[in-house]
Amino acid sequence: MHDGSTPPMDPVTLEVSDGIATLTMERPRSINALSEEMLAALQAQLDDIATRRDIKVVILRGAGDHFCAGHNLKEMTARRGDEDGGYQYYNDLFATCAKMMMSVVNLPQPVIAEVTGIATAAGCQMVASCDLAVASEEARFATSGINIGLFCSTPMVALSRNVPRKAAMEMLLLGEFIHADKALEMGLINRVVPLEQVAETTREMAAKIVSKSPVAVKIGKRAFYEQAEMSLAKAYEYAGRTMADNMMARDAERGIGAFVTKAPMPEWEGE
Amino acid sequence: MHDGSTPPMDPVTLEVSDGIATLTMERPRSINALSEEMLAALQAQLDDIATRRDIKVVILRGAGDHFCAGHNLKEMTARRGDEDGGYQYYNDLFATCAKMMMSVVNLPQPVIAEVTGIATAAGCQMVASCDLAVASEEARFATSGINIGLFCSTPMVALSRNVPRKAAMEMLLLGEFIHADKALEMGLINRVVPLEQVAETTREMAAKIVSKSPVAVKIGKRAFYEQAEMSLAKAYEYAGRTMADNMMARDAERGIGAFVTKAPMPEWEGE
Amino acid sequence: MHDGSTPPMDPVTLEVSDGIATLTMERPRSINALSEEMLAALQAQLDDIATRRDIKVVILRGAGDHFCAGHNLKEMTARRGDEDGGYQYYNDLFATCAKMMMSVVNLPQPVIAEVTGIATAAGCQMVASCDLAVASEEARFATSGINIGLFCSTPMVALSRNVPRKAAMEMLLLGEFIHADKALEMGLINRVVPLEQVAETTREMAAKIVSKSPVAVKIGKRAFYEQAEMSLAKAYEYAGRTMADNMMARDAERGIGAFVTKAPMPEWEGE
Repeated sequence: MHDGSTPPMDPVTLEVSDGIATLTMERPRSINALSEEMLAALQAQLDDIATRRDIKVVILRGAGDHFCAGHNLKEMTARRGDEDGGYQYYNDLFATCAKMMMSVVNLPQPVIAEVTGIATAAGCQMVASCDLAVASEEARFATSGINIGLFCSTPMVALSRNVPRKAAMEMLLLGEFIHADKALEMGLINRVVPLEQVAETTREMAAKIVSKSPVAVKIGKRAFYEQAEMSLAKAYEYAGRTMADNMMARDAERGIGAFVTKAPMPEWEGE
Repeated sequence: MHDGSTPPMDPVTLEVSDGIATLTMERPRSINALSEEMLAALQAQLDDIATRRDIKVVILRGAGDHFCAGHNLKEMTARRGDEDGGYQYYNDLFATCAKMMMSVVNLPQPVIAEVTGIATAAGCQMVASCDLAVASEEARFATSGINIGLFCSTPMVALSRNVPRKAAMEMLLLGEFIHADKALEMGLINRVVPLEQVAETTREMAAKIVSKSPVAVKIGKRAFYEQAEMSLAKAYEYAGRTMADNMMARDAERGIGAFVTKAPMPEWEGE
Repeated sequence: MHDGSTPPMDPVTLEVSDGIATLTMERPRSINALSEEMLAALQAQLDDIATRRDIKVVILRGAGDHFCAGHNLKEMTARRGDEDGGYQYYNDLFATCAKMMMSVVNLPQPVIAEVTGIATAAGCQMVASCDLAVASEEARFATSGINIGLFCSTPMVALSRNVPRKAAMEMLLLGEFIHADKALEMGLINRVVPLEQVAETTREMAAKIVSKSPVAVKIGKRAFYEQAEMSLAKAYEYAGRTMADNMMARDAERGIGAFVTKAPMPEWEGE
């Protein structure tokens, strides 16, 4: 942590090992709030990761006891003094934040949220935007903007695509915390484990994804979100072509070849 | 109840206190069936409520032991004798009913269904059309038209936007009652409590909504249903602008201001 | 099973009794893989069933211990030697398979998957494509293509329209089996029963559908999938007209007539 005598730690750190990138939000004192600095750092890291072939999967987590508490309200309030009361700034800020959230969705590699403590407002939106999520038993989730006069409209976009309609509406209108067990039941997360097993569980899940063909993972993740917005007939047309393309990949040829001849799976080449 | 000597009670009564409107369907002898009279009364009340600033949230309930048994089949059968066998009448009736259901969705204020006894066919659709729902333990839900030769096609529109596909299909094809616990599991409702606690639980939930900024609630409820029909990118564009607009509201300025300065939340002005 | 001296059994057999068609995939030695032969036989049977008024509901099952293991990978691998490496063949194959899956969705009669053992890849897709599904306690489901370098893109289309987003993503990215209880929780199936009760449970569910008006069932099933792809307003317009049309059917007239006069339900005429 920053004691004033050394340069401050980067808002986001990246550590890569065994094909797994761990992206850590490093502002625990502000509960890893999505300040301008944090958003820019996340965007830069995601843009970089998208180009890196050595990274097969990303774990997104928060330093300290919590995941992320959403936007930086102090920073936002400071812009009330702008000539337009901050209107243009807020528009730009929410567009910047939405771009970052969509970069998680559009990233070639799967992203797993590792959630401890609280994930609120845009922090809850990040969990919803990730492909998979692991949480500790004490983790709590809320879209709590409504409690301070600001409905969580952008978090709603991601949340309402993850959980049933009335469950989303309850979180958005009441602004109350839900516990990890409830979040699991409603489909917001994939696993709940004791706090001391969270890192290990997330890493095991990540390692499973590393063990798959990266070209198949990349093709599939992209297709998932593309087809989700199509009619059934269009989705099948698109997914059929996608799967034929996937068949042409060296990895599919070698993997299926090994399977039908009962040989061990090959090392994936990623193409 | 109407004994013939006094004028009949209105089909729907409205009681407002502490910002909470309680809208009660008052035809328990017909299980609050959605007769022409009932539909017109509900529409008139919803149109009126939409304009009232003193109402922050609506509770929708049925007088007597039940919520609502759907359309009035006697009234419908009487129109078999029309020149066209009732076809135009049925078209108009279903359009009138759909308009009322969409008025619940489009109402600025959130609507909480308070369900006791049965909620069947268009009665089940009303529960699905509300933003939130509380039910008693003995409440039961069905889309039972299929049992009498009339598939619940309009109830399906609301139901299938609330619960998973196979669960909806089962209710629609088998026409069987599901219990409140099952309805909770599948996402149709938010709470199940003993019968004697239903009114209190619904009122507590309503009071929580009254405690929020009405402008934020109104902006958010509208945005919820609008963005649900958009692609992810369009939804973010829309929700980002919506949230910037919400930031411009006095309530957001004062609420966020109080939050960052650790002051108590203000009284909301609703603008 | 085929011993070489008798002609091989058809890949799919159809047995009809009491209005229930049982469609059985008859290649247990290949875990009822969706070979070209199997896909053609299923398509032919579905095309035929669509025209038959004596069939009110279809049960889809696999001979032997399992439901279906998806595509026939040996057959697919054999086409690697084509001039284009099999690309056109794979495109055609996935289009043929998607056509069959959509024929299940578009069939006038409801289709119930009866699942024992494994349902993997396109086998899991078949379960998701059916209107209803009953599984034995030991049944297991997976979209396991990712394990051999081929992401289950077409199975995803059906799966992601049945279960919450993160649950679908987990199955697709990790390729692991999920048990019947978990499949029930996430909404992929309607019932889990001990293996020895699976056939009876499915048949009871089918018999309930036989007891309904076939014209109402046909109108409703079609409307379900049509309206699922529409906005709320369009869906109500469409469903309102659909329901008025349903009112004009003899079955609705007689069924509703019996209901309002408290007479026993009529024998359905199916029109």
